[in-house]
Amino acid sequence: MINYNEALEIIKHEIEKLTLHTEDIDILESYNRILAEDVVADVDLPPFDNSAVDGYVIKYSDRKEWKIIGEISAGNFSSFNLTENDAVLITTGSKLPSNADTVIPIEDVEVNSDLLKLKENVFFKKGMNIRTLGNDLKKNEIAVHRYTKNDAKTIAVLASCGKEKVKVFSKLKAAILATGDELIPINEKPAGDKLRVSNIYSLYAAIKEINHTVINLGFTKDDKEIITQKVKAALEMDIDLFITTGGVSVGKYDFLKDIFEEQGVKQKFWKVNIKPGKPIYFGVYEKDEKRILVFGLPGNPVSSLVNFYVFIKPAIEFLFKQDEIKNITATLQNDLKKKDGKRHFSRGILFEEKGEWKVTSEFSQSSGNLVEMSRANCLIEIEEERVNPKKGERLKCILI
Amino acid sequence: MINYNEALEIIKHEIEKLTLHTEDIDILESYNRILAEDVVADVDLPPFDNSAVDGYVIKYSDRKEWKIIGEISAGNFSSFNLTENDAVLITTGSKLPSNADTVIPIEDVEVNSDLLKLKENVFFKKGMNIRTLGNDLKKNEIAVHRYTKNDAKTIAVLASCGKEKVKVFSKLKAAILATGDELIPINEKPAGDKLRVSNIYSLYAAIKEINHTVINLGFTKDDKEIITQKVKAALEMDIDLFITTGGVSVGKYDFLKDIFEEQGVKQKFWKVNIKPGKPIYFGVYEKDEKRILVFGLPGNPVSSLVNFYVFIKPAIEFLFKQDEIKNITATLQNDLKKKDGKRHFSRGILFEEKGEWKVTSEFSQSSGNLVEMSRANCLIEIEEERVNPKKGERLKCILI
Repeated sequence: MINYNEALEIIKHEIEKLTLHTEDIDILESYNRILAEDVVADVDLPPFDNSAVDGYVIKYSDRKEWKIIGEISAGNFSSFNLTENDAVLITTGSKLPSNADTVIPIEDVEVNSDLLKLKENVFFKKGMNIRTLGNDLKKNEIAVHRYTKNDAKTIAVLASCGKEKVKVFSKLKAAILATGDELIPINEKPAGDKLRVSNIYSLYAAIKEINHTVINLGFTKDDKEIITQKVKAALEMDIDLFITTGGVSVGKYDFLKDIFEEQGVKQKFWKVNIKPGKPIYFGVYEKDEKRILVFGLPGNPVSSLVNFYVFIKPAIEFLFKQDEIKNITATLQNDLKKKDGKRHFSRGILFEEKGEWKVTSEFSQSSGNLVEMSRANCLIEIEEERVNPKKGERLKCILI
Repeated sequence: MINYNEALEIIKHEIEKLTLHTEDIDILESYNRILAEDVVADVDLPPFDNSAVDGYVIKYSDRKEWKIIGEISAGNFSSFNLTENDAVLITTGSKLPSNADTVIPIEDVEVNSDLLKLKENVFFKKGMNIRTLGNDLKKNEIAVHRYTKNDAKTIAVLASCGKEKVKVFSKLKAAILATGDELIPINEKPAGDKLRVSNIYSLYAAIKEINHTVINLGFTKDDKEIITQKVKAALEMDIDLFITTGGVSVGKYDFLKDIFEEQGVKQKFWKVNIKPGKPIYFGVYEKDEKRILVFGLPGNPVSSLVNFYVFIKPAIEFLFKQDEIKNITATLQNDLKKKDGKRHFSRGILFEEKGEWKVTSEFSQSSGNLVEMSRANCLIEIEEERVNPKKGERLKCILI
């Protein structure tokens, strides 16, 4: 059985071979989309010398008093020709008169009718409070890099660069299918050994969370004929990922692996030395130009979601070169039991206290306990060789 | 001039008076929406005793060998009546036979045809690897609390509780309007003292980021008549927040404040002792049952976005009782200049290195520098009384 790192490397190696498509979308639709182009500044930013503060613009000399001769506000430039005697009220961002060189902040002066006087003991230096043309970015320099995930800040820059339309990577398309004789629709009440299907819902949301497209194929009983038809149909779809749950473990109804093989999916691994989620299957389907990554996750709802977070999500982030903050090292607040050589992803609650990151994990860690998992905000990663981490030890926590 | 904390308290006080509406939506649409009801488990979770592992279920005795008499997989329960002599293959999550009490994991046994033998030196104890009915949550207990922001984990729990439809808080509606004689559409090239309007785009994305509804009113020149009409129209809309940029500073065209007053908006504060974003205006418009919070942000694009992040976003999070991780205390990697008594929100880059959080801030901190801001991932909060924080000092960083 392979270890976690090996498994993740195999997935990364395969996901890199996916063909990424791009599309041009309206800037207002580009929030949370990943740029597929370097966006270059088509003008200097800012495009003219301007005032960094609300204040009075002057031509510097050793004077401490001036006569106010006018006002410049943003978008209302007047080409005053200042003498050393003159001052002009100027608002933040407004263009400077050509022979002005210094702006005194409004709080550092006294104004008496049209007379301006510098206050005592304030900072006063030639050239202060001026933002020069191109100071933020020079024309033709890269303003926002390819692979940037757009947020409010980068979208402001795209707007400043005149990008009405933005080239972004198309979302990946993932189809999800749950399998299991135990599953019933969520609007039915479970009886006997039946369970409401929750995997479809959690994976649907998890894929939305990373802003890709999800096609919900629902769920099916453990009937080899029916599942075969569903898998066949899925592999004919225009998708990048096909994610199933259930049917990859040790029971006689666990025939997903066989079905994948019969349908031409090439197995890359089955079973990883982790807990929870060990039975995970990974394969690749190729036909002509088409390439689909196939993930057979265990049917257990905690396991399938943990598998998504530790295999599929990081592989997609790797593909799109995303490096947001998603791990935090924290001090364990209670002993944890872990005696095997697997990598564990235990549910925990991460919090900062007096500048120190701490993680509690009083959970049962049962992979059946969805409610418990829903109250966690991280997975505590305990590496293979690590045994029974004790209170006070430091561990990597993955935000979920 | 009031301080940051006072200003934020005033906004929180006013935002709490907004009437929150709710709506029933499909569970598949509920990702990132905030629950407006406590969701109660309508069954025990899990609804039956089941196996926590793939293994063999037995009736515990001092025996170490058993005869395999059958198999139970999830959804295919058979009511075996076990003797101490018998073992049944059972997969994770499958319902236990009624007189079984112990499950031995598959890796701890040797199987020879229908003979099962416990390996040497493995953990073996009565009752092990059983998940009992209601162990995750008892029927009628709260499964997911009101004010929870739905994610993949909580949606899995909602599904398990049979919630096809979920009651969530309706999104707030915010209208945004930029003002300024300097503004031109982003598809034009700036000349003279003109600038492309970026505020509309950044605020639009920032409101999307917190998953509320945004109505884009575009931008307008500093014409009192026109702005008055736009403000009037906005205040007649069915909105919760009205956010403008520009026109709240010291220039002769800064008449937003006057217009708000003329239109019946009650000023709560104007100007806060912070940097950047000092000129921020806040007021409330009330008419009959209607209540609109009015934010006049400065026109400067960095200032307006920082204002959004430090006033509007935390107030909305407060309203919906959200407590996600959004601040990290970090060690400053370079000296910062700050001599005044304002609260500064400086742009920084936060990262973890060997388990320690660090923040660099080599930026100019000019409120004109949008590109600089777009490369930051946090705002470093420097309190009023703090002067020139030095390399090595610890500071609160707000993730942006």
